[in-house]
Amino acid sequence: MRLILQNTKNMSFFMSFGLSSNSMASNHITIDTINPKVLECEYAVRGEIVILAQKLQEELKNNPNSHPFDEILYCNIGNPQSLGQQPITFFREVLALCAYPAILDKAETKNLFSPDSIKRASDILGQIPGRATGAYSHSQGIKGLRDTIAAGIEARDGFPADPNDIFLTDGASPAVHMMMQLLIRSKNDGILCPIPQYPLYSASIALHGGTLVPYYLDEATGWGLEISELRNQLETAKSKGISVRALVVINPGNPTGQVLAKNNQKEIVDFCKKEGLVLLADEVYQENIYVPDKKFHSFKKVARSMGYGEKDISLVSFQSVSKGYYGECGKRGGYMEITGFSPDIREQIYKLASVNLCSNISGQILASLVMNPPKVGDESYESYSAEKDAILSSLVRRAQQLEKAFNSLEGVSCNRAEGAMYLFPRIDLPNKAIEAAKAVNSGPDAFYARRLLNATGIVVVPGSGFGQVPGTWHFRCTILPQEDRIPAIISRLTEFHKEFMDEFAC
Amino acid sequence: MRLILQNTKNMSFFMSFGLSSNSMASNHITIDTINPKVLECEYAVRGEIVILAQKLQEELKNNPNSHPFDEILYCNIGNPQSLGQQPITFFREVLALCAYPAILDKAETKNLFSPDSIKRASDILGQIPGRATGAYSHSQGIKGLRDTIAAGIEARDGFPADPNDIFLTDGASPAVHMMMQLLIRSKNDGILCPIPQYPLYSASIALHGGTLVPYYLDEATGWGLEISELRNQLETAKSKGISVRALVVINPGNPTGQVLAKNNQKEIVDFCKKEGLVLLADEVYQENIYVPDKKFHSFKKVARSMGYGEKDISLVSFQSVSKGYYGECGKRGGYMEITGFSPDIREQIYKLASVNLCSNISGQILASLVMNPPKVGDESYESYSAEKDAILSSLVRRAQQLEKAFNSLEGVSCNRAEGAMYLFPRIDLPNKAIEAAKAVNSGPDAFYARRLLNATGIVVVPGSGFGQVPGTWHFRCTILPQEDRIPAIISRLTEFHKEFMDEFAC
Repeated sequence: MRLILQNTKNMSFFMSFGLSSNSMASNHITIDTINPKVLECEYAVRGEIVILAQKLQEELKNNPNSHPFDEILYCNIGNPQSLGQQPITFFREVLALCAYPAILDKAETKNLFSPDSIKRASDILGQIPGRATGAYSHSQGIKGLRDTIAAGIEARDGFPADPNDIFLTDGASPAVHMMMQLLIRSKNDGILCPIPQYPLYSASIALHGGTLVPYYLDEATGWGLEISELRNQLETAKSKGISVRALVVINPGNPTGQVLAKNNQKEIVDFCKKEGLVLLADEVYQENIYVPDKKFHSFKKVARSMGYGEKDISLVSFQSVSKGYYGECGKRGGYMEITGFSPDIREQIYKLASVNLCSNISGQILASLVMNPPKVGDESYESYSAEKDAILSSLVRRAQQLEKAFNSLEGVSCNRAEGAMYLFPRIDLPNKAIEAAKAVNSGPDAFYARRLLNATGIVVVPGSGFGQVPGTWHFRCTILPQEDRIPAIISRLTEFHKEFMDEFAC
Repeated sequence: MRLILQNTKNMSFFMSFGLSSNSMASNHITIDTINPKVLECEYAVRGEIVILAQKLQEELKNNPNSHPFDEILYCNIGNPQSLGQQPITFFREVLALCAYPAILDKAETKNLFSPDSIKRASDILGQIPGRATGAYSHSQGIKGLRDTIAAGIEARDGFPADPNDIFLTDGASPAVHMMMQLLIRSKNDGILCPIPQYPLYSASIALHGGTLVPYYLDEATGWGLEISELRNQLETAKSKGISVRALVVINPGNPTGQVLAKNNQKEIVDFCKKEGLVLLADEVYQENIYVPDKKFHSFKKVARSMGYGEKDISLVSFQSVSKGYYGECGKRGGYMEITGFSPDIREQIYKLASVNLCSNISGQILASLVMNPPKVGDESYESYSAEKDAILSSLVRRAQQLEKAFNSLEGVSCNRAEGAMYLFPRIDLPNKAIEAAKAVNSGPDAFYARRLLNATGIVVVPGSGFGQVPGTWHFRCTILPQEDRIPAIISRLTEFHKEFMDEFAC
């Protein structure tokens, strides 16, 4: 990925060096002498199209009539609160009280905060040594919060969870990096990843110098995950001398939105067990399920229900406060639960966590809250439930409306979003559009996405950022714009698509 | 570093595998098949001694009479609030209001929060798109907060600072990792680091597969940094085929506590300029200066005052909310300011930041607050100043008392803490103690630290965790225990040391 930074300072910098950093003093660091793994890494979710969007936004700010739309709609990233979703009140009450415990006992506080938020904040502060929310915690996170999270996992799965298996992290991303750092020794180490995949995985594998071993999800069967495909890709990788170390499964899927059936999960567990693969289960969308015929089952629950314990399979489950109905992306809270690793390897994971000291305490607290929200009978329960249900039921409607709209477009087909926050429609682009893209040195999907942005202000991510079957073209679009905006978005999109297809009709 | 995890679950895990992970199914991941760079990395600040301390603390909890002390005193880590330091009220008021903006306009809020904290929170929320503190921000951090930080740097240095040069991070550690990831290609790439050093640097260099090129600080001249030593080590490294890419300077020093003189900083800048080295300036203790004859000067200010601009030197300054008088370690806020990098390299740094989306918003807000605290005339100014001055003046007294105490011990000499949060006394251990350590397969400094912990409950970090001239022994001890506890700590320490020296007298 080469990003174009629009910045006068950089331009003057360029100019003072004759437009190339290579003309700097020969012993200076240059693009040719940095770590090539960094160059190799790509991250389209914040890539070229988003940088163009930021530029257009700046132009709109300076001149509201500069474009045929009056705002940029960021559908490139699962960032609900950036599009107007409100935080869950109870969670924010507790966070505010933990940030400023001095007001806990004040009379006015009772008028501003719910009684159970005051109680919860007191309980949490009681679990923190010295009530110090400003202190580094244990490298894995505050023990009391890990107890709460473990209890939440137990309640969810019906199988025991151990607080010593929990590592609290600043969102799920650092946890994924930690596991990649642990597992990857060289280019000869492979990680099986779905294609399409969330590009954190490809980026992290590239940065740690490993090899992404792709397995393709089957678009025709609703992004089905076939064991035969896993097996084929594993064998192919082995025949190339790749030692495959782990399998990444994203469930519910990102960008694909499918929810795995329990039987399919069992097959995956058996496959990992038999092949000695670490199962890296991205389960951050576990609360985002939109269809009545599918349910979320954690891989740990599935493995335990098959009778498999610690010694049978190495399993990591990633969870985040950024997703679910809460969507608290800016809080950077999350955790991984690791099971089936020997004590000497756990020591190494602990050491990796220790090098960064600990994750942020607000994020830690929030992770404990989402795994233990208000219960029936708590003062906040009704308002909490109402907020949660309103968000989730609206997401269902938005997913359906957008899916229907995509499917009504010429040459577009779109699987339903059973979960997560995205649709990943496929576009059969006319040859003339593919040629036009080629002429400007662009991928056809990026060409389409750029045209869409320039015409409508809607930001989506080209399918190439996630991987797709060669010769097919997709884009990822979140279902997150506020519900009352969806009809307008659909008409902008429909109008654009029609004009695009007309322009490039063969 | 091999850590011993004390955990019944792990023990049963051990047992079920016959005490070794090697007996797991042959295709399982084992300690012999993980990334050797992870094995190589060490991080003593949270190492063996701390794990022993946690065990003793657990024992004390179960039986208060199990040890000859009634509490563990964590002097291993610069974590002020864990030892009772209170947060700055104004900062926490603003954080609480930003966490729960719904109360901003409530009448009761005016009774609970200072007027300027309400105003500041409103201003900050106004700078955040959609007032969404729960949204991912720009990968570098919220633009308005970066503006504030840049203005704070300008006010500090008297030279311009550009918000586009600021990358907000979850504490300084991830920023250091990002730069190491960028600069290190292989074992043949070297980073000049002070010895003794803060082990984040050695750990990060090991994890990224580079070579730490040591330069020794001169204990005899108060941990002086000699350019001749830098030059010698650089030449030695070059002669071994190492391409040295950067120089790490920690100012004020960690673990050594010295504050560099401006002239010395000028020499360092010239050295980096001449050799084409990136200057990685760890300036997280910039507000922790305890002696009237020393002042903090940022390396950027020094370089600019020498007339050096963007094209002369590549410079990174790390700052953190964990240190200073605020000591907000748990908030994981910080930033790096990067100057003198070509646009194409900046793109790569932006990409690395993007892969983790953004740092936590509370930490971002706090970073803006510490760089723009209340000013004369603001309602909170007096209480803010009083809190700040009380903390800093107490740290001065504590540093002096502990330094004096260490220097009064037989065989111990200790440079003064001019800044930072640590003392790094040198112990001339009797030969018999060195032999005794050897007999139990321990380094002499670790042996001393373990004995100290077992006798007094005081946790310090052996000098070997930071590096020291071979044949010399040190430990790092924070100056952070609350002031009223210092006399008792000194007597415990003095008594222990006397007994230790008596026991091992030759």
